[in-house]
Amino acid sequence: MNRNTILDLLAAVERGELSPAAASDRLTNLPFEDIDHTKIDHHRSLRSGLPEVIYAAGKSAEQTAEIFSRMAAAGSDVLATRADSTTAQYVQEKTPAAVYHIQARAITLRQSLTDSARGRIAVVCAGTSDIAVAEEAAVTAELFNCSVDRIYDVGVAGLHRLLSVRDELTAADAVIVCAGMEGALPSVVGGLVGVPVIAVPTSVGYGASFSGAAALLGMLNSCSPNVVVVNIDNGFGAAYTATMIARGSQGR
Amino acid sequence: MNRNTILDLLAAVERGELSPAAASDRLTNLPFEDIDHTKIDHHRSLRSGLPEVIYAAGKSAEQTAEIFSRMAAAGSDVLATRADSTTAQYVQEKTPAAVYHIQARAITLRQSLTDSARGRIAVVCAGTSDIAVAEEAAVTAELFNCSVDRIYDVGVAGLHRLLSVRDELTAADAVIVCAGMEGALPSVVGGLVGVPVIAVPTSVGYGASFSGAAALLGMLNSCSPNVVVVNIDNGFGAAYTATMIARGSQGR
Amino acid sequence: MNRNTILDLLAAVERGELSPAAASDRLTNLPFEDIDHTKIDHHRSLRSGLPEVIYAAGKSAEQTAEIFSRMAAAGSDVLATRADSTTAQYVQEKTPAAVYHIQARAITLRQSLTDSARGRIAVVCAGTSDIAVAEEAAVTAELFNCSVDRIYDVGVAGLHRLLSVRDELTAADAVIVCAGMEGALPSVVGGLVGVPVIAVPTSVGYGASFSGAAALLGMLNSCSPNVVVVNIDNGFGAAYTATMIARGSQGR
Amino acid sequence: MNRNTILDLLAAVERGELSPAAASDRLTNLPFEDIDHTKIDHHRSLRSGLPEVIYAAGKSAEQTAEIFSRMAAAGSDVLATRADSTTAQYVQEKTPAAVYHIQARAITLRQSLTDSARGRIAVVCAGTSDIAVAEEAAVTAELFNCSVDRIYDVGVAGLHRLLSVRDELTAADAVIVCAGMEGALPSVVGGLVGVPVIAVPTSVGYGASFSGAAALLGMLNSCSPNVVVVNIDNGFGAAYTATMIARGSQGR
Amino acid sequence: MNRNTILDLLAAVERGELSPAAASDRLTNLPFEDIDHTKIDHHRSLRSGLPEVIYAAGKSAEQTAEIFSRMAAAGSDVLATRADSTTAQYVQEKTPAAVYHIQARAITLRQSLTDSARGRIAVVCAGTSDIAVAEEAAVTAELFNCSVDRIYDVGVAGLHRLLSVRDELTAADAVIVCAGMEGALPSVVGGLVGVPVIAVPTSVGYGASFSGAAALLGMLNSCSPNVVVVNIDNGFGAAYTATMIARGSQGR
Amino acid sequence: MNRNTILDLLAAVERGELSPAAASDRLTNLPFEDIDHTKIDHHRSLRSGLPEVIYAAGKSAEQTAEIFSRMAAAGSDVLATRADSTTAQYVQEKTPAAVYHIQARAITLRQSLTDSARGRIAVVCAGTSDIAVAEEAAVTAELFNCSVDRIYDVGVAGLHRLLSVRDELTAADAVIVCAGMEGALPSVVGGLVGVPVIAVPTSVGYGASFSGAAALLGMLNSCSPNVVVVNIDNGFGAAYTATMIARGSQGR
Amino acid sequence: MNRNTILDLLAAVERGELSPAAASDRLTNLPFEDIDHTKIDHHRSLRSGLPEVIYAAGKSAEQTAEIFSRMAAAGSDVLATRADSTTAQYVQEKTPAAVYHIQARAITLRQSLTDSARGRIAVVCAGTSDIAVAEEAAVTAELFNCSVDRIYDVGVAGLHRLLSVRDELTAADAVIVCAGMEGALPSVVGGLVGVPVIAVPTSVGYGASFSGAAALLGMLNSCSPNVVVVNIDNGFGAAYTATMIARGSQGR
Amino acid sequence: MNRNTILDLLAAVERGELSPAAASDRLTNLPFEDIDHTKIDHHRSLRSGLPEVIYAAGKSAEQTAEIFSRMAAAGSDVLATRADSTTAQYVQEKTPAAVYHIQARAITLRQSLTDSARGRIAVVCAGTSDIAVAEEAAVTAELFNCSVDRIYDVGVAGLHRLLSVRDELTAADAVIVCAGMEGALPSVVGGLVGVPVIAVPTSVGYGASFSGAAALLGMLNSCSPNVVVVNIDNGFGAAYTATMIARGSQGR
Repeated sequence: MNRNTILDLLAAVERGELSPAAASDRLTNLPFEDIDHTKIDHHRSLRSGLPEVIYAAGKSAEQTAEIFSRMAAAGSDVLATRADSTTAQYVQEKTPAAVYHIQARAITLRQSLTDSARGRIAVVCAGTSDIAVAEEAAVTAELFNCSVDRIYDVGVAGLHRLLSVRDELTAADAVIVCAGMEGALPSVVGGLVGVPVIAVPTSVGYGASFSGAAALLGMLNSCSPNVVVVNIDNGFGAAYTATMIARGSQGR
Repeated sequence: MNRNTILDLLAAVERGELSPAAASDRLTNLPFEDIDHTKIDHHRSLRSGLPEVIYAAGKSAEQTAEIFSRMAAAGSDVLATRADSTTAQYVQEKTPAAVYHIQARAITLRQSLTDSARGRIAVVCAGTSDIAVAEEAAVTAELFNCSVDRIYDVGVAGLHRLLSVRDELTAADAVIVCAGMEGALPSVVGGLVGVPVIAVPTSVGYGASFSGAAALLGMLNSCSPNVVVVNIDNGFGAAYTATMIARGSQGR
Repeated sequence: MNRNTILDLLAAVERGELSPAAASDRLTNLPFEDIDHTKIDHHRSLRSGLPEVIYAAGKSAEQTAEIFSRMAAAGSDVLATRADSTTAQYVQEKTPAAVYHIQARAITLRQSLTDSARGRIAVVCAGTSDIAVAEEAAVTAELFNCSVDRIYDVGVAGLHRLLSVRDELTAADAVIVCAGMEGALPSVVGGLVGVPVIAVPTSVGYGASFSGAAALLGMLNSCSPNVVVVNIDNGFGAAYTATMIARGSQGR
Repeated sequence: MNRNTILDLLAAVERGELSPAAASDRLTNLPFEDIDHTKIDHHRSLRSGLPEVIYAAGKSAEQTAEIFSRMAAAGSDVLATRADSTTAQYVQEKTPAAVYHIQARAITLRQSLTDSARGRIAVVCAGTSDIAVAEEAAVTAELFNCSVDRIYDVGVAGLHRLLSVRDELTAADAVIVCAGMEGALPSVVGGLVGVPVIAVPTSVGYGASFSGAAALLGMLNSCSPNVVVVNIDNGFGAAYTATMIARGSQGR
Repeated sequence: MNRNTILDLLAAVERGELSPAAASDRLTNLPFEDIDHTKIDHHRSLRSGLPEVIYAAGKSAEQTAEIFSRMAAAGSDVLATRADSTTAQYVQEKTPAAVYHIQARAITLRQSLTDSARGRIAVVCAGTSDIAVAEEAAVTAELFNCSVDRIYDVGVAGLHRLLSVRDELTAADAVIVCAGMEGALPSVVGGLVGVPVIAVPTSVGYGASFSGAAALLGMLNSCSPNVVVVNIDNGFGAAYTATMIARGSQGR
Repeated sequence: MNRNTILDLLAAVERGELSPAAASDRLTNLPFEDIDHTKIDHHRSLRSGLPEVIYAAGKSAEQTAEIFSRMAAAGSDVLATRADSTTAQYVQEKTPAAVYHIQARAITLRQSLTDSARGRIAVVCAGTSDIAVAEEAAVTAELFNCSVDRIYDVGVAGLHRLLSVRDELTAADAVIVCAGMEGALPSVVGGLVGVPVIAVPTSVGYGASFSGAAALLGMLNSCSPNVVVVNIDNGFGAAYTATMIARGSQGR
Repeated sequence: MNRNTILDLLAAVERGELSPAAASDRLTNLPFEDIDHTKIDHHRSLRSGLPEVIYAAGKSAEQTAEIFSRMAAAGSDVLATRADSTTAQYVQEKTPAAVYHIQARAITLRQSLTDSARGRIAVVCAGTSDIAVAEEAAVTAELFNCSVDRIYDVGVAGLHRLLSVRDELTAADAVIVCAGMEGALPSVVGGLVGVPVIAVPTSVGYGASFSGAAALLGMLNSCSPNVVVVNIDNGFGAAYTATMIARGSQGR
Repeated sequence: MNRNTILDLLAAVERGELSPAAASDRLTNLPFEDIDHTKIDHHRSLRSGLPEVIYAAGKSAEQTAEIFSRMAAAGSDVLATRADSTTAQYVQEKTPAAVYHIQARAITLRQSLTDSARGRIAVVCAGTSDIAVAEEAAVTAELFNCSVDRIYDVGVAGLHRLLSVRDELTAADAVIVCAGMEGALPSVVGGLVGVPVIAVPTSVGYGASFSGAAALLGMLNSCSPNVVVVNIDNGFGAAYTATMIARGSQGR
């Protein structure tokens, strides 16, 4: 029940066409989402100002293409994550303007007017194998209209490279750090910057990396207090929150 | 906002004292719990017909005694779980009618009229060390007005004893089985009865029992499809659900 | 040895054809199941009133088809779970009346007279990826002659949708909640209803979901005391117990 | 070596008092921190604008008191976390203006001029047992000059209470959510607000909560993309990052 | 119901005093253990020829002393494991002939005639810290009337010592090997002997020994095929099975 | 260096051809296995009287066939475990008398004279999916010249079937019990027999069975003290030790 | 910025062409690696004197071949680890002098002058399945110009074989021990030698070996104090450190 | 049997007093350690040139004092690790020259002539709470006659401090790095030096540090190939191996 529906109902009471008791019953039992006149995902999109997102991993190429095109039809920006190239083909057939980002395994469609970027995010990764996750973060943040600095292949075993990009790091409103193996990079970066660092453990590694669990534990135990953590390989989630932070610093 | 509040508001609209638009605003933004006119625990108590419960483990003896007496003053039945004897003394000082069940580490107060018991629960345990958990379940179910059959010390290494109580088992509306170590008893009991079996892993054991985790895993993998599981040592939760089941079988 | 066999034996003693000593020996050593005159699965089916079940995952398509047709020949309702489409083809070749439920990966055959449904179960799931498990539960419960309300895609990140189906939830005799990722939905549903909630963790998720372990742990630690848990992806087991509960509430 | 030291050195070269070769040697081998003229903690404090922090858990009461007084003497705001009451006594003896927050187990000293708060943080917790961690977060954020809304005891099993505080939640620049047991609250809160949610798993629970690991896993798998996670019981770290976020939204 | 009871019943049928139908009812419903005329523990003792055992860890000193004296009164040999010195005092007060083995933390009472030992067991341990577990095994086996060779402090880092006792090892009917830390000793011993090796992981170690889990895993993965494993610190269980093996080799 | 070599050396000393000092040096540094005149596997085979074994899983079909034929040429009995049908073809090409046991995934060659079996082993399994592991145990024990009773599909959820085979169980010198899921069967069997029970957890199950870890933990925590455990799916190892036990009972 | 660059800058100050203030700014902000005039990998290669290494597992055959040829062009020795045969073909097409080591899954190119080997390493493994990891270590060490003794198939269940190679073991400057399953070999070897033992757990095993975790834990808990550990299957890392140790013993 | 014993035996053969056959028998059956004429610890001490060590944690103060004084009487250097102050008092009563190192919880006695140190070790730690473990390493290495550089409190969140000690780091023959929490420091140090880095995870941390397991996993997954790892808190083992390495670089 949206606001109009409520107004109609109250007007009926005012006109004497509906008794207060009957109106009370209907109001008390209103399904909550009817008040907001939207189903959940639209609701979130409206509230956060961020586009619709499709998690393609658990869906068929056809399903993803169908949902994508329906969202596109609604005029909003659209993002599909964890999409393989087959899915991309299906999507682009139905929505030719969609762009496939092969490293990020993401499909994007931008329909909003792109005013100047709101906020600046640095996306850092430790090794070349972490780039897929880093790109998922970078592509997401760019679709969300953030300016993104990609700083790749700056692992902690070679501090020189990392220290040489300190200026770019300190210029960011939020930093996303993707790292597998021992997951030490966020702690080091956290000590270099004065903004929140969102750490993304990646499933890169072998043996006792336990598919990213070692990196995850390392990040949770970071000695830098400005490090927060998301799930293994969750570049999207990191970018989602980083965008909120970066945007916040320029006025929501 | 309870029903009366809503009626007052609608009456004001009817009387023309409040515009539909203003009423709409107030209604849309009503805190949800005001509609139900109750805070959560009372709400649950009313809906489920089960008494108030205090988890004493994380509270001081004084705090538990204070909450207990306030609930008692409200006229309801009261249960405090995980209470040591010091806590029991504090509670009984303020609420002399409270009863302390030393094995169950539970304090109960019955104020409701005890009509005939509604439903019958068998509480089974594997070894003498599981009795504390079993008693927490038994005392809880009794306060909830269920008839309880205690069937203790019937481990799977000695089937004779278990088979000798088959009649009591099959007479129950629901069976609670508490077991530590390998946690095999619920599977065996599940094969003997035609009602739900609520399995409670206990932290009894040593070494590779990992404080109840071995029993928990065993129960989750039960080959009897009528076995469901609660948290380690959670006799209270088992009794709570078993009461709902047993009660249901005689009409809610 | 069934009752008739025992009577025959005792009659032989009475007639003096068998000495007490010889009869004693035979009675003491009777295989237990001979007393009940049935092998285990039939036994369970008879006692619980629920149909025969085949777990197809560990069997060849031929084996499942063979067992299915033998059970069908016995006149009972039959259910095969975890069956892929190849298995379904084999089964339907031998038992044309069998129905394949593709989402549930289940094959059913109903031969019993379908009187009015006994009990009502709500099957709830958090996301579209949980639907396979939810459907296994729903199809099972329906074959067991329960009325089923499917309430899908109502995750906790969007409360509006969940709150809008509160009426259906509270109308159920038991609620099954399937959820992966953080497994939070059963706790929320548990707070909304006054009946048992059977939580089914699903293996949906990635990274630190550890194939359903995160959801499992979340459900075991639920703050709602009416939540009980079954194994990861075990929709069948949830429906089996839920049916017992729902049926119980209308008289066994 | 601070800027003045470098200028002196270069001036000596300009004056011909130091050869380029000799200056080159001294510059190349400068300990890095001397360039920045500060040891690490002061450095971080200066860069982030946040006060000095002492982790008291691994230190004796005397050590903490000594460090606290030295920091106080430097004129900065000071925070000691994980401090018991004995430690508080020692600290207050040496630094009478220090304040002990018993629930938060934190000692604070404010010496900076308190202008109007910069940013607003909501600190939410699920149960009364989570309050210690929530208070550590709240006290930290307040010392960092943020406005804090405490929203306690709003667990997911009783949505009414949570929904009734939606206004306070949506007014915050960042939300900290502390929860033990199943750790479901951050997901639900994440769905209600359009700002970052920092989830703090607490070690509250028993059995399969595994001292907070269950809550931690739940939060990492949150279906709300604006949820980020810190270590178990790490209220301080959550507040540190939340302050950075909240502050950012009003201009760093 | 023992054999005599059954004979009486059948005799009554023979005499015509009891109808076959009535006898059938009573026989069908006989509690299983009544047929065997014993409760479980006695039953096991009779069948295996091994004495009664009390696990003292979960019982009060008074309880253990009471059970011990009742078993002693029945004339059997008695063993209490995991008994501290206080418990030993209580037991010896009631049963002066009981012997306390301080390293083994076991109390024994021998009442059977000690004919020549049946079978020979070697009890081996890796370090001095494993001796408590080794002694529990040794004392148990001795009470069970086995000859025991104690071979202590022969860790794998010093093969000389181990190789010097090869004669004693090869003379045993079964070998018990207790080891903490990496748990490598059973594999090495297994390669030296041609009899079963029962490996007992001990909780000795620190850090990544995880209270015996590392040793347990090592033993389960032994490359010697004659190694079988019991629970961490379970010297009693190892001796129980070893006795059965050793005894078997000389005729049961 | 075999005994003859040593005698030669000593004779040289006796003849004065070698000084004691030179002989001492050579003796002290003798490679240990040369004294025993055999390499390890032959050594073990000779000592234990059990045949040669090839673990085929980590080898190519060609490698296994080659090793198999060389062992066969030496005249001994040969066993290859974890062999797929391709490997079997290769082996049988080179060694036509070899037999492939498809369920057991084992290849055997018997060349020894088969006198009457030495000892009797019962191989028990819980469900049809455990049969592969059970057959590996049974085939191994048979090649080792033990009499084997196969008792399959007697899970704990249906005690009748298990109780009906009690005679076969109690007739065995050792019992092997294979079970997946909750792994409860060894405890129940352990309570029914007076001989060692070797428990083999199988990787059968799903979800929280964690590929056999749940069954393994259950068995390690068995309340029956005559239960010992081997690695997950290790039917071979169980048979190896069971044979030693069974053989022992009739004289080694 | 290398030394020359700094000298130029300082000379400019001396000449009065650059003010001290401007020079100070440029010096303070120099990227660290510019001072060292190299990017990280070259830097490490120069400092340690060890060749360039490519981890091929996460790269396409083309990528590996491209990097390999670029490194080869620079004149250095090159090593690619975890390379399958397809990758080897690509590499050899571009760099015909490259050698593929099939068991080690490694590709090497030696371009340096091979003077006499510096240091001696023994590479030991327990079973034939560990040879792949052992060969990765051996091939790496040989490319690093170490002398390597391969001592394979000397598991702890057969001490004779191990003891027979004691001379080779004690001749090494460092010993690498690769073992799966229970991981006991490093402890035994550690007791036989007086040099560092680098233990490499391998993922060989099944069931409770948990892909090498059991071996890893065993090695970390070694009772030999000269045992240090690297990641599961990390033959390369073991050889890298062993080379440093062996080389050190002859002068760096 | 030491060399003299063998010579005596061979002389008897030479003199004709012992037949070659009889001598052969005695030689073949010699306990291995008798050939080396020493029990294990003395053996290791002689071979490695490192002193005797007592692990005091599992021993009473009296036991440790007794062993310590006996070793002291033998003239060797002595080290007791994990010793509390009570144990130190007992030791010093019997061995007044013993020194107690309170932070390291170690007792040392030096009796060897201290010539110039052999090799140089840097002991690095991340935070003040890691100092106990670092001191155990440092004190051990010093007793082993190494020169030790202590470099404490140089965590990765503040690179300046770490970079400022690069000269000391690169001067070492081996580096020991102790770190808890995320365990990132060894990777960073490993990138700065060209010698082996022995990483010691410490049990410092809380929550998801899981008593050092997070640090351990981080170190095992280090991206620096010169990092090897020992058990959690095992400062002694790290120093033992580091001494071997450092010593090696100057000639053993």
